[in-house]
Amino acid sequence: MKYIAHINIMPLKELLDPQGKAVNNSLHNLGLSQVHDVRIGKHITLSLEAASKEEAQQAAQDACKKLLANQVMESFDFTITEA
Amino acid sequence: MKYIAHINIMPLKELLDPQGKAVNNSLHNLGLSQVHDVRIGKHITLSLEAASKEEAQQAAQDACKKLLANQVMESFDFTITEA
Repeated sequence: MKYIAHINIMPLKELLDPQGKAVNNSLHNLGLSQVHDVRIGKHITLSLEAASKEEAQQAAQDACKKLLANQVMESFDFTITEA
Repeated sequence: MKYIAHINIMPLKELLDPQGKAVNNSLHNLGLSQVHDVRIGKHITLSLEAASKEEAQQAAQDACKKLLANQVMESFDFTITEA
């Protein structure tokens, strides 16, 4: 069966996010002063062929750990949906 | 009240995503050959002060349209949750 993994990779809360800080300031300059704590990460979608949802979850976790996320600096979470 | 906006910004489906293609190939090289159609975009979280959920949605949409997403090449969607 075909599944789609929706993966979010974000910088760890303990670390500074200079890109988020810059966007935060830019939003204030544009008049959106109610915005705070901007953090910017990656959103990755991928299609997976797998026999079951559990197998798809395992493959998505493998992909995150082996390649997509740098776990020293980033955390990841994902959801699996049927295509 | 305080809300959190979870924003996803992805390259439009009609456009090539060379970064996604490269990651796709790398995952195959790592043995994850069941993966296809990798697309890479941005995930942005931000805190918002707003009187209502509707006001928070409006602010998040403003932020996307004015700064975060380039609508010529990217689409965006977001969800608002209470902090």
